[in-house]
Amino acid sequence: MGGSCFGNIFKISTFGESHGEALGVVIDGLPAGLRIDREVIRQEMARRRPGQSLLTTSRQEDDQVEILSGILDDISTGTPMAMLIRNTSQRSGDYRELAEVFRPGHADYGYYTKYGIRDYRGGGRSSGRETCARVAAGAVAKMLLHSLTGTNIRAWAGEIAGIKAETFNPEEIEKNPARSPDKEAAGKMAQAIATARAAGDSVGGVVCCKVTNVPPGWGEPVFDKLDAKLAYAMLSLGGVKGISFGDGFAAAGMLGSENNDAMLPGGRFATNHAGGILGGISTGEEILFSVAVKPTPSISREQSTIGTDGNSRQIAITGRHDPCIIPRIIPVIEAMTAIVLADFALMQRCAKIK
Amino acid sequence: MGGSCFGNIFKISTFGESHGEALGVVIDGLPAGLRIDREVIRQEMARRRPGQSLLTTSRQEDDQVEILSGILDDISTGTPMAMLIRNTSQRSGDYRELAEVFRPGHADYGYYTKYGIRDYRGGGRSSGRETCARVAAGAVAKMLLHSLTGTNIRAWAGEIAGIKAETFNPEEIEKNPARSPDKEAAGKMAQAIATARAAGDSVGGVVCCKVTNVPPGWGEPVFDKLDAKLAYAMLSLGGVKGISFGDGFAAAGMLGSENNDAMLPGGRFATNHAGGILGGISTGEEILFSVAVKPTPSISREQSTIGTDGNSRQIAITGRHDPCIIPRIIPVIEAMTAIVLADFALMQRCAKIK
Amino acid sequence: MGGSCFGNIFKISTFGESHGEALGVVIDGLPAGLRIDREVIRQEMARRRPGQSLLTTSRQEDDQVEILSGILDDISTGTPMAMLIRNTSQRSGDYRELAEVFRPGHADYGYYTKYGIRDYRGGGRSSGRETCARVAAGAVAKMLLHSLTGTNIRAWAGEIAGIKAETFNPEEIEKNPARSPDKEAAGKMAQAIATARAAGDSVGGVVCCKVTNVPPGWGEPVFDKLDAKLAYAMLSLGGVKGISFGDGFAAAGMLGSENNDAMLPGGRFATNHAGGILGGISTGEEILFSVAVKPTPSISREQSTIGTDGNSRQIAITGRHDPCIIPRIIPVIEAMTAIVLADFALMQRCAKIK
Amino acid sequence: MGGSCFGNIFKISTFGESHGEALGVVIDGLPAGLRIDREVIRQEMARRRPGQSLLTTSRQEDDQVEILSGILDDISTGTPMAMLIRNTSQRSGDYRELAEVFRPGHADYGYYTKYGIRDYRGGGRSSGRETCARVAAGAVAKMLLHSLTGTNIRAWAGEIAGIKAETFNPEEIEKNPARSPDKEAAGKMAQAIATARAAGDSVGGVVCCKVTNVPPGWGEPVFDKLDAKLAYAMLSLGGVKGISFGDGFAAAGMLGSENNDAMLPGGRFATNHAGGILGGISTGEEILFSVAVKPTPSISREQSTIGTDGNSRQIAITGRHDPCIIPRIIPVIEAMTAIVLADFALMQRCAKIK
Repeated sequence: MGGSCFGNIFKISTFGESHGEALGVVIDGLPAGLRIDREVIRQEMARRRPGQSLLTTSRQEDDQVEILSGILDDISTGTPMAMLIRNTSQRSGDYRELAEVFRPGHADYGYYTKYGIRDYRGGGRSSGRETCARVAAGAVAKMLLHSLTGTNIRAWAGEIAGIKAETFNPEEIEKNPARSPDKEAAGKMAQAIATARAAGDSVGGVVCCKVTNVPPGWGEPVFDKLDAKLAYAMLSLGGVKGISFGDGFAAAGMLGSENNDAMLPGGRFATNHAGGILGGISTGEEILFSVAVKPTPSISREQSTIGTDGNSRQIAITGRHDPCIIPRIIPVIEAMTAIVLADFALMQRCAKIK
Repeated sequence: MGGSCFGNIFKISTFGESHGEALGVVIDGLPAGLRIDREVIRQEMARRRPGQSLLTTSRQEDDQVEILSGILDDISTGTPMAMLIRNTSQRSGDYRELAEVFRPGHADYGYYTKYGIRDYRGGGRSSGRETCARVAAGAVAKMLLHSLTGTNIRAWAGEIAGIKAETFNPEEIEKNPARSPDKEAAGKMAQAIATARAAGDSVGGVVCCKVTNVPPGWGEPVFDKLDAKLAYAMLSLGGVKGISFGDGFAAAGMLGSENNDAMLPGGRFATNHAGGILGGISTGEEILFSVAVKPTPSISREQSTIGTDGNSRQIAITGRHDPCIIPRIIPVIEAMTAIVLADFALMQRCAKIK
Repeated sequence: MGGSCFGNIFKISTFGESHGEALGVVIDGLPAGLRIDREVIRQEMARRRPGQSLLTTSRQEDDQVEILSGILDDISTGTPMAMLIRNTSQRSGDYRELAEVFRPGHADYGYYTKYGIRDYRGGGRSSGRETCARVAAGAVAKMLLHSLTGTNIRAWAGEIAGIKAETFNPEEIEKNPARSPDKEAAGKMAQAIATARAAGDSVGGVVCCKVTNVPPGWGEPVFDKLDAKLAYAMLSLGGVKGISFGDGFAAAGMLGSENNDAMLPGGRFATNHAGGILGGISTGEEILFSVAVKPTPSISREQSTIGTDGNSRQIAITGRHDPCIIPRIIPVIEAMTAIVLADFALMQRCAKIK
Repeated sequence: MGGSCFGNIFKISTFGESHGEALGVVIDGLPAGLRIDREVIRQEMARRRPGQSLLTTSRQEDDQVEILSGILDDISTGTPMAMLIRNTSQRSGDYRELAEVFRPGHADYGYYTKYGIRDYRGGGRSSGRETCARVAAGAVAKMLLHSLTGTNIRAWAGEIAGIKAETFNPEEIEKNPARSPDKEAAGKMAQAIATARAAGDSVGGVVCCKVTNVPPGWGEPVFDKLDAKLAYAMLSLGGVKGISFGDGFAAAGMLGSENNDAMLPGGRFATNHAGGILGGISTGEEILFSVAVKPTPSISREQSTIGTDGNSRQIAITGRHDPCIIPRIIPVIEAMTAIVLADFALMQRCAKIK
C-alpha cells in the first residue's frame, strides 16, 4: 500500500534504501515563486549527516543534494521539485553477516513477515538513512514558511541518558555536539554517550521543539488537527516512542482551573499549558512539543535473537553506529515539523470563501 | 480543506455539530460479506453516551444509530455504510450566553480566527459530541477485525487525577464507573472526580490501551507506520495531549541493552519494551500505548477570558459537563484504534505479489 | 476500496442504494462564509427528479434534501455539510423477480462477481438514483462558483435518438422536456422517445455542456488536468460511454494549422477548437464538451441473459423506467462539472507563493 | 496543489521538465516479490523514444532508465521504486526565442497565468517529454499485471490524418512506423504525415486500445469506475481531446435493444457493445476504447499569437517536432492503461471479507 507519501497540498514522496543507489524526495505542491537557497539545503543536510562529531557515528557521508526539477533560475515553478542524494560511503559488507538474522530493536522481523524478503543491507528502507530525504524536503518547507509567515522552528536535546537540560540558552544549542541549550548539561550528556559507547551500549533521550510565528487558525477540524498531524509526523521517525504537547502527560494530573490558559485582550494567552494548540487549531502562542527517542538498537554488546530459520542466535552488531541518535534526529524533527506546517499554511488558504 | 476524512482503504468521513440536526459517518471501503451485529453498535454507543454514571455529565443522550446504507439483510454489500445519530437532547439555550465569548481551554478562539464565524452552540464541530460518529464506525471496525484476525482491543483508566491503577484485573474494568482495572484505585478516582466537581473544577488522566492478536507485519514503511497512524488517530481526539508506545518516555532514559527486546524461537519476544511495534511494523506481540488526557476545560469556576470584541471577560461555564472525560473517552480510543487497525489489515493484502 | 469519495479540497463522499433507507452526501472542504440558498438546491433536485414529464419515468420521487450539518443560519461554517435524501417511493416488489437474474446492459453481473452478493433491489448502489446525492452537492458547488468567479454551467440535449439540435437558443433549453436548445428538434426528439417507449425499447443521445467565466489558469499539470478530471467525473456516470472536448474526435482529422487557436491581444483566442482547455489548463475561453450517453438498458422487450445459477434466462424488465435518460442526466452533468470546477477554484489558491 | 501523483494503491509520483536535469517517477505501492525485467523497461522506452522512424521527430534521445530503489537482486521489495531518466540531448537554444511568446495550441499561456512564470524551455513540465516517466512506470505495471492475471494491453493507430485502418492484423502493428494494424493504410498514413511535414504542418488521429484477460469485477462503484479512471488517465495526456468506450458515441444513436449485450451461460456475452465495462465494472470481455489525439500544435507554418507583453506576434516554430504524435503516444496510452489496471487489480483484493 505504500506509505512513503505524506501531506495533502505540500505533498512529499520519498524513496531509497540505506545501501541502494540513491535516496530522494519529490515535493508535489510547492507553490511557484519561492526562491530556493541551495545553501540552506546544504546546511540542513550537514546538521543531519553522520560523522559531524565524536558523539555520532564515524561514518562519513557527504549527502550532496542534486535538484532535478521544479526550479528555473533557482525560483520554484510550481511543478514537482525532485531532489536526489547518491549513496557513496555505504559498505554493504558491514551487513553481509546480518543477512540471515533479525537484529533486536529493529524492524527486520516485521519487514520479513510483511514482505517475505530480507533486505539485510543496513535495514534497507527502515534505516535512519531514509531521513536525509526528509531533511532535504524540510529545508524547502522551512524556506516556504519563512517566506509566508516568518515561522521559525527550533529543536534541541531536552534530555539525554536521563540528564536534563536545566537552563535554556538558544544560542548554545548548535554550539555543542549534543545540541543542548544548557552548556553544562551538554558536557554531562557527552560524557554519558561516551560511556555507553565504550560499553558497547547506547542511550536515548527527549527532543524538545518550539515553533514561533504560527498564526492562530492553522489546523483542520476533527482528524487533521495540527497536533494530530505533528504526532503522525514525529511517530513516523524510527526510534520515536512518544510525543507530548505543552504540559503533556503532566496535564493529566492537573485541575482544569490549573491547565486552562486564560485569554488576554489582543488574542494572547496568560500561560501556554496547551503548547499553542487547542482543539487541534493553533492559538497563535508558541507551539511546544517533546519527543521521546529510544536508545539506538544497534549495539555491539551480545544479544539474543533468532535467524530467518527461526533458530536462536547470538548477535553483536559491529559497524559504525550512533551511540545516541538525539543530536542527529534534531534536524529531522525540525524538518518534519516544517513539512507539516507548510501543508497547513497552504490548507489555510481554503478555509474561508474570501 | 476539510479534515473530517480518515483512512486509506477503510475510509471514514464524519459530520455533525453538537447542536445541529444530526451527526454521522460514512464508511467507504468496508469489504462485502461482513455480518453487522446491531447490538454491538448499540453497546459501544452506550459505553460512550453521557449520563451513564455519576462520574459523567448528567445529560441524557440516547444516541440511537440508524444504518442508512451499505447492508442487505445485515450483511455488508461493499458499498458505503452510512450511519446517522440524531441530536435530541441538546439545549442550545445553555450556550446562548457564550455566543460572544471564547471559552478557555477550548477551540473557540482558533475556530473563530480560522473561519471568521462563531458557532457558539456547544463548540459545534469541536465538541466532544462528534466522537459518537467515531464510535459507530469503530464498532464496525471491531467486527471486521474480529472476523479477519480475532484482533481484540481493550482500553482502561490507567490514571485519574494523579491516582494510578496499581493492579490489573481486566474483568474489573467495565464494572466500575471510572473504567479502572484496579477496584481500589477506582474508588479513589471516583472520590477525586466528585471532589473536583464539587469545587466547580475538573480532572484529567491517562488511558492505557492494549491490542491482542495483531499479526506481525502490519504497518507501512516510512510515514504510515503503525504507531504513526495510531498517534495521528489519538491526537485527533480533543483533550488528548500526548501518547507513548511501550515504555514510552521511560525508554528515553534506558540503555539500548535494556530497551531492546530479545527474540525467541517461534518469532516471539522475551520482553515487550517496544509495545508491539518496531520500526513502525507490528511484531506480533501485544500493542501497548498510553494516552494523556487533559482535565475537561469546561468548569464552573470563574475564569478570565476575552469576548469576540477583544475585551476582557469573566466566565463561569454552567451547563452539564463531564468533570472528567476519561471514562467516556475510553470507548472512543478503542474505536479509533479499531479504525486504524482495520485499515492496516486491508492494506496488508497488498504487501506481497501473492 | 471504496470509490464513493471524489475531490481533493472540495471533497464529497456519497452513500445510498436505490431501495435502501436513504441516499446522501457529505461535503468536506466547503469554505466558511458561503450563503446556502435552499431554493437553489430544491430547484436542482427538481430538474433531476423522475416524473417531471412524459419523456421520463412515471415514478414520483419527491427527493427532499435535509441539511444535517455544516451551516449556521444558512451560512457555511467550514465544517462538513451533510445532506440526506430519504427514499420514499421505491417499490422493492418491482425488483423481486430480478433477484436471481442479471439484467443485460447493467452492472448486475459485475457487482456479483466483485462482491459475491446480489443486491437485486433496483441495482442498489449502481442505480442512477445515486446521482441525486451528486445533484445536491453540485448545487452547493454551483453556489460556491457563482460567489467566487461568477462561473456558469449550462448543459443541454445535443442529440437524442440520432436527432441533432441544429440551432442554439439557450432560453429554449428548460422550456421543453427534452432540454433541447432547438425547439423544432425537441419535438422530434420527444416523438422518437415516445416511439421507443411504445416499442418497449429505449434511446440514447449526446449531452453538450458549456461553462462560462472560468478564469485562465485552472487545472493542475500532468495528471490532474482540468479535462482529465472532467472526463473522470463524466465517465463516473452510469450510461456515459464517451466524452470529447472542443472539436473532440473531429480534431483527429484536422491539420495543426486548422486546429490551433490563434491568440489575440488581451489574452483571448480567435477561435476555440480547444474547447477552453490547453495542456489541461483553462485558457479563459468557454469550456465546451460533449458526453455520449447510451440508451437506457432497462427495456421491456424480451432479452436473453443468465441467472445467478449460470443458466440461460429470458427477461422482460417491467417497472417504470426512463425510455431516454438524457433529459434527467443533464442536471447531473452540470452538477459533476460544478463539483470538479469548485475543487479547481480552491486548488488554484495554492499555485503561487503570493 | 500538485497534480503529479496518480493512483490509490499502485501510486506514482512523476517529476521533471523537458529541458531540466532529469525526469523520473516514484512508484509507491508496488507489492514485494515481482521480478523486474530491465529489458521490458528498455523496450517500452524504445517504443516511445523520438527518432525511431522518419514519421517522428529527428531528435535522438536515448532515455536510459536508472532504477534507484525498491529492488534487491531485481526482485521488488515492497518499498518505493524510483526510476530516473537523465536529459541528455535537449537543446535549450532551440527555445530561447520562445521565451517571451505563447505558442498556439500549447499550455504556455495557461501555465503563465497560473504560475506567473514562463518556463520557456520546450514547454517545461507541459512537454510531451514528461510521458517518458509514465512509460517507465507503465512497464512495471505491465509486468505486475502479467504476473497477477495475464492481462495484456495492446494499442494501435486506428486513424491518422483521416485515414482509417480497415483491417486488423495484430502482427502488423509494430512492423510499420505508423503502428497501424492495416499494412495498406499504414502506407497511406505515412504518406499523409510526410505531406503535412513538408507543408510545415501536422496531423492527428485516433488510437485504439484493447485489453484482454481482465477478470470480471474490477472497478469501484460510483466515482472510481474502471472507465472513469481510464478516461482520467487518457485525458491526462497532452493532445488527447476525447475518449470513447465500446461503441462510444455511436451508442448514442442506438436502441437499447441493439446496444445491450446479451449474456450467455458461463458468464460470457454474445456481443461487446459495452467495450468490456458495465456500470464501471469489468465484465470479463475485452476492454475496448478509442482516444482522439489532436494534430501536434508545434508547426513551422506562421501563426498569429501574442507575447508575454500582451502584444501581437507572428510565430513559426522551428526545431525538431513530431508531425504526428500518434506512433509515439501509443506506448504511452498502453502505459497509462497498465497503471490504472494495476491499481484496480490490487484494490480488488479488498472487495470481499474473504
